[in-house]
Amino acid sequence: MPLHQPDVLIMGGGVIGLTTALCLADKGLSISLLDRQSTGQEASWAGAGMLPPGNLQNATTPEARLRSYSHSLWAGFSQRLLEQTGIDNGYRVCGAVNVFNKDEGNLLMAQSQAWTDEGVRFHLLTSNEAIQYVPDLNPAFESTVYLPDFAQVRNPRHLQALRAACLQKGVEIIEHVSEVNLVAADNRILQARLPNRILSFATLCVTAGSWSTSILQSLGVEIPVRPIRGQIVQLQLNKLPFNCVIEHGRQYLVPRQDGLILVGSTQEDVGFEKKNTAEGIAQLLEFAVSLVPTLRHAEVVRCWSGLRPASPDELPTLGAVPGLSNVFVGAGHFRSGLQMSPGTAAILADVICGSETVVSMEGLAADRF
Amino acid sequence: MPLHQPDVLIMGGGVIGLTTALCLADKGLSISLLDRQSTGQEASWAGAGMLPPGNLQNATTPEARLRSYSHSLWAGFSQRLLEQTGIDNGYRVCGAVNVFNKDEGNLLMAQSQAWTDEGVRFHLLTSNEAIQYVPDLNPAFESTVYLPDFAQVRNPRHLQALRAACLQKGVEIIEHVSEVNLVAADNRILQARLPNRILSFATLCVTAGSWSTSILQSLGVEIPVRPIRGQIVQLQLNKLPFNCVIEHGRQYLVPRQDGLILVGSTQEDVGFEKKNTAEGIAQLLEFAVSLVPTLRHAEVVRCWSGLRPASPDELPTLGAVPGLSNVFVGAGHFRSGLQMSPGTAAILADVICGSETVVSMEGLAADRF
Repeated sequence: MPLHQPDVLIMGGGVIGLTTALCLADKGLSISLLDRQSTGQEASWAGAGMLPPGNLQNATTPEARLRSYSHSLWAGFSQRLLEQTGIDNGYRVCGAVNVFNKDEGNLLMAQSQAWTDEGVRFHLLTSNEAIQYVPDLNPAFESTVYLPDFAQVRNPRHLQALRAACLQKGVEIIEHVSEVNLVAADNRILQARLPNRILSFATLCVTAGSWSTSILQSLGVEIPVRPIRGQIVQLQLNKLPFNCVIEHGRQYLVPRQDGLILVGSTQEDVGFEKKNTAEGIAQLLEFAVSLVPTLRHAEVVRCWSGLRPASPDELPTLGAVPGLSNVFVGAGHFRSGLQMSPGTAAILADVICGSETVVSMEGLAADRF
Repeated sequence: MPLHQPDVLIMGGGVIGLTTALCLADKGLSISLLDRQSTGQEASWAGAGMLPPGNLQNATTPEARLRSYSHSLWAGFSQRLLEQTGIDNGYRVCGAVNVFNKDEGNLLMAQSQAWTDEGVRFHLLTSNEAIQYVPDLNPAFESTVYLPDFAQVRNPRHLQALRAACLQKGVEIIEHVSEVNLVAADNRILQARLPNRILSFATLCVTAGSWSTSILQSLGVEIPVRPIRGQIVQLQLNKLPFNCVIEHGRQYLVPRQDGLILVGSTQEDVGFEKKNTAEGIAQLLEFAVSLVPTLRHAEVVRCWSGLRPASPDELPTLGAVPGLSNVFVGAGHFRSGLQMSPGTAAILADVICGSETVVSMEGLAADRF
């Protein structure tokens, strides 16, 4: 049996790789996707699935463009996955309360200005209004803001839905690939040699999160992405004490409909080491209890960590790889891989097909470092 | 086949029940032991296996008598279990460092006096000496004391060894017994009716920890024992940063030889609810890191909780049950069930056989409440 030879080989089966595979398959291309383990087991799985709002019309920064474009796609994309696969990814518009300490007045001002400029809906809450969203909120916070359009998705379920949709659309998923030798000629990559198979392709797309750097290094390209560990604790209560996401700076509480609450997350530059530490878990639990004191009685169900792929400027790198005519990259999304995945995949698929992209990629190009 | 009818029926297969069964079997009695689940799954399993030293010769309180008598038995009993079953229970004399804050001077004085009076070996350490035992100890502690004779046992392994030894000595272990009806006549309990079997016996012995109260209540006897939850976190490091137990008041760190460190424990009066809470785990992790700051990087491997059986005076209740001529109890050991189990079992076995006990049971009788 002659083995399938894809138009595009995607290396890395996280949320960026899987969504890109699906977009390309939708465009009629044949796709193979490689993962060194099972798909969707790393950062995409480990995050909390927060989907902050945006307004594409007024987005002026690369971050805002990618966030707001993605935000505009999430509802429809989730519906499509549900219809195609029968898997509910748990997408819902849950709203978010952002809290600010007394000494975070400047942060609140800057953030409010940014929301206003972009046209993101937000309301400053009185303390009476705040406790309607979060009855047990610690009253010590100086200011609270409500973002009605903030959404969430249950990322592990979304990854299952993506995988199923890819398979249904004919994407070949090749997992547990321990070794890949990429064969180059001139400025093209022609083949990927696996232990028991050779894949020939027109286009290579690297979407391997923190592992992208070493893959691209083997091709002589430097795209700096380093792993930044994030730890999460999962709490459980019989009855959710709040339904919205709560954020304080970069820490958050994300409630799931079944009584689970994710408490995240740390930011640790410790290399490729996934583990939960005494200090990290203690910090997260203290944060949760300080935000919503009744959580002190919540059950600690589980904890885990993930490795976020961070570029030096914390922005993803999207598009053509310099010096190689058929290689593309979508990596370095740091904390925003899940939320930015629909937009990233749509852009990557357009670029790979030579189409115009819906939003400008200015500031995200691979040669910016 | 006529079913075995035991001389003694033991209700409750924790460390007290299993050790008592073994002592009685050693005396030639036939024993059946009931457990509502598998043996050794509750408080005996959940503790940390600390075995504080004692000196039987000078012991003057009920607590000291039972602790020091037990302490004198642990080494030999562990050796016997190893020889009989091939299971190493991990008994070792590891020493303990007790630390005291600046404002705990009175506690240190009282404790030192008690050790001196009992003839327990201890040394006040200089800070240079202290860091020889615990190189990373937080220097903020005012005083540290070393107890060279402090020992530990890996309690889950000890329970396995006990169970194996019991089975080898012919103890019948009946597990997962959901319902027991005890049949009384005059002032004796004659039978235990299980769903599929009737056990007739000469003597009944209740060693069911926190569940003892309800069993005895059904016989018209009030022995107040209530569950006090204790949570534990297990940390792991590649290399142990210290080999001795470290205690600060009622909280402790217990290192196992394979790099695990138990951090315990909370004391919570919340009924029969085993769970780990955000507040409990945060407290334990903060305690661990405040005691030995390098533990901040230790991996959080697991957490669990157990229900300690506490009497109002925190002392166990041992011996004959008032008003019933053939019923005995060994329960309410609170935090000390594991450490006091060899002595408790030896005493209970003697009392049940009508022999003199090695140490006085003054202060532990079932009619003291």
